[in-house]
Amino acid sequence: MMTAEIISIGDELLIGQVINTNAAWISEQLNLAGIKVHQISTISDKRDHILTALQEAEKRVDIILITGGLGPTKDDITKETLCEYFDTHLVFSEDVYKNIIELFGKRGLTLSSPNQKQAEIPKACTPIKNNHGSAAGMWFEKKKKIFISMPGVPFEMKPMVSEYIIPKIQKQYRAQAIVHKTVLTQGIGESWLAQKIETWEDNLPDNIKLAYLPQPGIVRLRLTAVGKNKKALEHQVDDKIKKLLTIIPDYFFGFDNDQLSEIVGELLRKKGQSVSTAESCTGGYIAHLITSIAGSSDYFRGSVVAYANEIKQQELDVKKKSLIDFGAVSETVVKQMAEGARKKFQTDFAIATSGIAGPGGGTGEKPVGTTWIAISTPEKTIAQHYLFGENRERNIRKTALTALKMLRKELLS
Amino acid sequence: MMTAEIISIGDELLIGQVINTNAAWISEQLNLAGIKVHQISTISDKRDHILTALQEAEKRVDIILITGGLGPTKDDITKETLCEYFDTHLVFSEDVYKNIIELFGKRGLTLSSPNQKQAEIPKACTPIKNNHGSAAGMWFEKKKKIFISMPGVPFEMKPMVSEYIIPKIQKQYRAQAIVHKTVLTQGIGESWLAQKIETWEDNLPDNIKLAYLPQPGIVRLRLTAVGKNKKALEHQVDDKIKKLLTIIPDYFFGFDNDQLSEIVGELLRKKGQSVSTAESCTGGYIAHLITSIAGSSDYFRGSVVAYANEIKQQELDVKKKSLIDFGAVSETVVKQMAEGARKKFQTDFAIATSGIAGPGGGTGEKPVGTTWIAISTPEKTIAQHYLFGENRERNIRKTALTALKMLRKELLS
Repeated sequence: MMTAEIISIGDELLIGQVINTNAAWISEQLNLAGIKVHQISTISDKRDHILTALQEAEKRVDIILITGGLGPTKDDITKETLCEYFDTHLVFSEDVYKNIIELFGKRGLTLSSPNQKQAEIPKACTPIKNNHGSAAGMWFEKKKKIFISMPGVPFEMKPMVSEYIIPKIQKQYRAQAIVHKTVLTQGIGESWLAQKIETWEDNLPDNIKLAYLPQPGIVRLRLTAVGKNKKALEHQVDDKIKKLLTIIPDYFFGFDNDQLSEIVGELLRKKGQSVSTAESCTGGYIAHLITSIAGSSDYFRGSVVAYANEIKQQELDVKKKSLIDFGAVSETVVKQMAEGARKKFQTDFAIATSGIAGPGGGTGEKPVGTTWIAISTPEKTIAQHYLFGENRERNIRKTALTALKMLRKELLS
Repeated sequence: MMTAEIISIGDELLIGQVINTNAAWISEQLNLAGIKVHQISTISDKRDHILTALQEAEKRVDIILITGGLGPTKDDITKETLCEYFDTHLVFSEDVYKNIIELFGKRGLTLSSPNQKQAEIPKACTPIKNNHGSAAGMWFEKKKKIFISMPGVPFEMKPMVSEYIIPKIQKQYRAQAIVHKTVLTQGIGESWLAQKIETWEDNLPDNIKLAYLPQPGIVRLRLTAVGKNKKALEHQVDDKIKKLLTIIPDYFFGFDNDQLSEIVGELLRKKGQSVSTAESCTGGYIAHLITSIAGSSDYFRGSVVAYANEIKQQELDVKKKSLIDFGAVSETVVKQMAEGARKKFQTDFAIATSGIAGPGGGTGEKPVGTTWIAISTPEKTIAQHYLFGENRERNIRKTALTALKMLRKELLS
């Protein structure tokens, strides 16, 4: 399998002012093309540093992709340093010059002398056309290794990778096939999940690798299969996932980049049904997740955020006696809230939450993290009790995700 | 100046599934503490690769910070590899074990055997307490170089850096005094702001640097002063900021990590007053921002998210005729919504929003991004019109922040 390293040049990345999204994007593209990214090195705009990074990368991998440091200003010294590394010198390129002229013409600009200098490229390279800027890309080959230098501006760099670099690499080498699929789970921690699927994991064939990718409230399981035939790999992965889902039916909710609010929304849309929410501890966050999805007005009608107890009574018909007897954080009250919202908004489904998000408000009987979630459906109202952690933000998020997953289950049943 | 390298371990970073935000955040923190980040190396979960990266980094810098690969699952091998690198072995740590027990106890969980294994740490290290998870941080020293290993989960890693690692490094080495202060603005773009404060910026002394840090809806201005005496620097920075605030009184809302929802909450608490919201296009996001702040139940009573027009009539007393004559996205309707919420929830203040968040729903007269925001106070109801952009997520966020800033102004007037 061919290997690559990405060298990201730029001081702005090393002081944390810019997040290195370029490297993530390039990695994904290479990976999908069957090229393994071995390392990403983010380095400064300095000659010595660039030379060292190139030397080290050359020892490690087959392809080195460099971004950044090609602007017309003085602090961008990548081009001169590449000349030094490949023992070559700058020459004027008619092709690059034409491209710059054309580009500036389209924008109604005239060339400044720093821009003219951008038409000079190292003699040893093949220029890569930049359709969106004046800095050309550069393709070098040295002892069977490929070195590619690109501008750091994402919209200039990305088309070079997709339209020129990856096709050229794939033509030059014949790459292995790689298939990824990510299984999304909610409501189970990483280590519990690992225990539950241990036997399944141990029986994975050598060409399939599993990675646990936890996020607050969610654990993603990524399967990566490597082999010769893409179709066969897809089949193999799907087969393994089918078995996995029988082990964790209560935690699975989707694949790859699926979002719970989107999945629930799609189910509602297909059934022509609607939802509303009655939120205490989540304070509107579930409504926010639902309405973050474009087109949610088709199935979402509204919410009551009932923080004060009087509002729960007044707006959601929660009985005063229930509040006194059981407290706001109780099965009885959260069920009444869900039923109240369903009635008020005349929706098919309603979600209700009541909990102690923290850090204050906990008691011996009901510590911080105590949460009740209810779902009211056309047939029934169910409620479940959870004990989450101590962090307010995470408790709100976990409650919201758990509620959406409970709704998903009801929509599928 | 001390130098550092960040080694980010994780295959998920090398296939582009996760963007390396940890490295950017750590870089920023180190930089603010006067430590120069020389390189960021993102590498795979493999023993050989980790060993090589450590060797290379050790040659280059004074401090090596490692994130990732400390989870309880089988694919995490950082700890064993660190033992190998430092020629040591795992020992059971009573402190780490106690921390895990305490953490699990609080959550009402029992330990699984992979979690117990997390109490084992290399004999040669000083453990760093993890207040938010079961994987301890590890501090190694070898030939005057510092090596620090941390979990990759951001909310576990960040407090380790801020509360333990940076203070310890600063104590161990005596760095120059650095003072940072960040001025937060809302409602003005980066380039407009730059124009407005140009003269002020040009007159900053050489030892004070200014950075523009834009976020959706907010531009942060960070001043960094370097010198010998911390007290004198603080005085100097405060003096400059006092002048700055006279230039941008309408856009300034706070300092450093202040959040608008927190500032508004504090103002309400001090006055013993309350707020509610009536949200259409923001879909509960303002209520969520307000209730994200601990203790918000003291001044927040509730919200109606009124997505459907009938809900606006039924719940907020919006006149049917106004909806027909002016549409839901109008000054008249948004004012009625705010007044309806204020009455329903019996609060001193109410916020209302109505807009076209997009991507659908725009018309020639009211394109995507058109937004009305109203604030109802004990004395009056005001409304303002905005035209934001085309991106749904950013429109929701900008509307919410603008609404909170409008409320802040009313609270201060």
